Amino acid sequence: MFAERYADRVQFLNPSSIRKMMAIAKGLIAQGKTVYELNIGQPDIECIPEFCEAIDKKARTGQINYSPIIGEKYLRETYARYLNNFFDKDGKPHLVIDTDNVLITVGASHALTSCFLGICNPGDEVLVIEPYFSPYSGFLAVAGGKLKAIPTRAEDDFALPPAEEIEKLITPKTRAILFNSPNNPSGKIYSAEEVERLAKICIDHKLFIISDEVYREMTLGDKEAFSVLQVDFGNEEMNEKLKNAIIMIDSASKTFSLCGVRIGTLVARQPILEKLALVVAHTTACVSDIMQYGVAWAYDAILSRPDYLDNMRKVYHERLEATMQAIAEYLPGVVAPKPDGAFYLMLKFPEFEDITEFSHFMLEKFNLGNETVAVTPAASFYLTPGYGRNEIRIALVVDPEKMRRSSQIISEALKAFSQFKVNLVRPML
Amino acid sequence: MFAERYADRVQFLNPSSIRKMMAIAKGLIAQGKTVYELNIGQPDIECIPEFCEAIDKKARTGQINYSPIIGEKYLRETYARYLNNFFDKDGKPHLVIDTDNVLITVGASHALTSCFLGICNPGDEVLVIEPYFSPYSGFLAVAGGKLKAIPTRAEDDFALPPAEEIEKLITPKTRAILFNSPNNPSGKIYSAEEVERLAKICIDHKLFIISDEVYREMTLGDKEAFSVLQVDFGNEEMNEKLKNAIIMIDSASKTFSLCGVRIGTLVARQPILEKLALVVAHTTACVSDIMQYGVAWAYDAILSRPDYLDNMRKVYHERLEATMQAIAEYLPGVVAPKPDGAFYLMLKFPEFEDITEFSHFMLEKFNLGNETVAVTPAASFYLTPGYGRNEIRIALVVDPEKMRRSSQIISEALKAFSQFKVNLVRPML
Repeated sequence: MFAERYADRVQFLNPSSIRKMMAIAKGLIAQGKTVYELNIGQPDIECIPEFCEAIDKKARTGQINYSPIIGEKYLRETYARYLNNFFDKDGKPHLVIDTDNVLITVGASHALTSCFLGICNPGDEVLVIEPYFSPYSGFLAVAGGKLKAIPTRAEDDFALPPAEEIEKLITPKTRAILFNSPNNPSGKIYSAEEVERLAKICIDHKLFIISDEVYREMTLGDKEAFSVLQVDFGNEEMNEKLKNAIIMIDSASKTFSLCGVRIGTLVARQPILEKLALVVAHTTACVSDIMQYGVAWAYDAILSRPDYLDNMRKVYHERLEATMQAIAEYLPGVVAPKPDGAFYLMLKFPEFEDITEFSHFMLEKFNLGNETVAVTPAASFYLTPGYGRNEIRIALVVDPEKMRRSSQIISEALKAFSQFKVNLVRPML
Repeated sequence: MFAERYADRVQFLNPSSIRKMMAIAKGLIAQGKTVYELNIGQPDIECIPEFCEAIDKKARTGQINYSPIIGEKYLRETYARYLNNFFDKDGKPHLVIDTDNVLITVGASHALTSCFLGICNPGDEVLVIEPYFSPYSGFLAVAGGKLKAIPTRAEDDFALPPAEEIEKLITPKTRAILFNSPNNPSGKIYSAEEVERLAKICIDHKLFIISDEVYREMTLGDKEAFSVLQVDFGNEEMNEKLKNAIIMIDSASKTFSLCGVRIGTLVARQPILEKLALVVAHTTACVSDIMQYGVAWAYDAILSRPDYLDNMRKVYHERLEATMQAIAEYLPGVVAPKPDGAFYLMLKFPEFEDITEFSHFMLEKFNLGNETVAVTPAASFYLTPGYGRNEIRIALVVDPEKMRRSSQIISEALKAFSQFKVNLVRPML
């Protein structure tokens, strides 16, 4: 009855493939099927216990109140302390941040949407390293903006293209370069030189550099993540320009296995922060005070328990090793580059043209002893047409034994799928 | 250094006068001053205890996880049950809602911004009854839209203008009529006939009717709120059209004294809900699972404890009576219409042209025994130029004794302000 009922931007918002699979998986689980949910980066690891103590304490005051637009001072202060310490402890040079550089948001997603709403007019563009976390395109579409890909490929170890190639993508509409290191989904950690290359381009073209560092602590081998806060041009003028371009995004979700607290942080110089805080104020009013309280205790706890992060990295590393081994054993035809960080694997199935149908078949029509696996078809992590169509992303979010079992299930599902397809094309009697 | 660094929409986002006063008040409190914070609708009443039990229980599972985009089923189900029961218990006819009609958001603010982002293109307009909750204009500005006032005035008991007057404001750009009953700041409860009048206009002009009902339970006398869900045209075709136009907004903040949980609800038919859920997914990804769990317990609790709301209403009613009496005693020149609902009072000071300077003077430069009062200058609740300039809004958020004391402080501050102004204009020696 209503012509043009919805805003134009809504047509560019689609449920992400991650969330689509999540909805189907949850439905099957409710019906009694065992599903290894490797489709979503939701760790099964128990959340940090100090969080639970803190929120219980806060709840018992009976006061659950509005928070300042910019976030609670105790969390902003603690996070600044945590981050400075994170770099300091290994003697890594970095920009020192303080409380005034920290804005609290409803998770990294809200930090990114607030950022895009704050800097992009309809029609503006943001460059992003491809493959990229697929919801980025919808976050930007809310502001009316459009993502443009800086392509990187598994066969080149996801290396960044030369500066000239990247600069060709810049137009008068370009507002920022967005990157994510360690990268979800590829696991790539960009080198110091690569991050500096991006930073220099941003300065030269007056762009913001948006660095999504939610997986900073999640390294799977010897390679450490290099933060945008660590860039040093050895030149005061350049460094000063960079400071005016940095927007760094972080989250409590992965670091503490607290995806359900919805607490993110945005780090920038104060004048930038104040503008973006206005967007926070006019999208969610403010962030939950009790969740901020719990997360502040969590950051504070790992300041005095540095082994917390080491242990978590060990857990993910063991899962990775078990999975790589299982893939070699059960899925010999699959190409699986070993990730440096985050907790995902991209698996390429060369025999497929499009893996979507198989992914749905495995989840919805297949089981091995009433068990199956949910994965994310990877095409949505690419903007370049055709890319990623024969790839899936799996998350290392269950224990090594279950990761092995998942590889076995995928292998059996592949056989069953071939049979299923043969039956489909067989003419009716 | 960066020309046009920020998106155009940011220039329309200003910290609300409520929040501006909050920031100053918090600063003074930190310095040791006692400030009665009547500037913000943050109840001092303890939150409902079942919430605390629930989140403690949930935290102890160690699993704080991503939630479905549309919200947790247990909360959507419980809220639907609560709302149907709220109307049923007094035998009030209403539209029955079910789980599929409920979307969970990060508070009513996020429900409203998601709604505006979902239905408004840049340049689109939304009509709002004036005076209105001032952050509405920023919520809409995020989507590029513009509020247009349906004026109502204290001297007419905030009565709605005739349909013809409202229809004159509608243009091809109009997308919705937004109203809030009980109204913040005026305390007005719109009659069944007034709500039906708005509903009929919306149907005739193919507009959404956005009904902000966060104060539904907060009535201060005998008059009950009339919900958009209670409209019945006695005509199936009209009722059907209305069902396709309704977007109802609610929140746990005031009902349970849980402003810091940031849990809101949006009620609409499923096709509308699914579109708006895409905006939620691309602004905040999802809503905190543990906060949803706590709020579900809260709604469930008051289903079996109907006196919970009665007691709360009694508390606010006592505060209102004490305040009305104190105003008559200490502030005889002030015009203070008695509100029917919500928990605010609008006070008009006829001797002032603009009350802003006095409000800041009282908060920042005045004290009575080291105590003072924070209020909200009311001009920001009006779009019509000049309106509300000699009005303030105060919230009934402290006990009767403190409400009385606040009136006394305002009275003394008025005397001190006169002296202050005299001194200012006295020529220098």
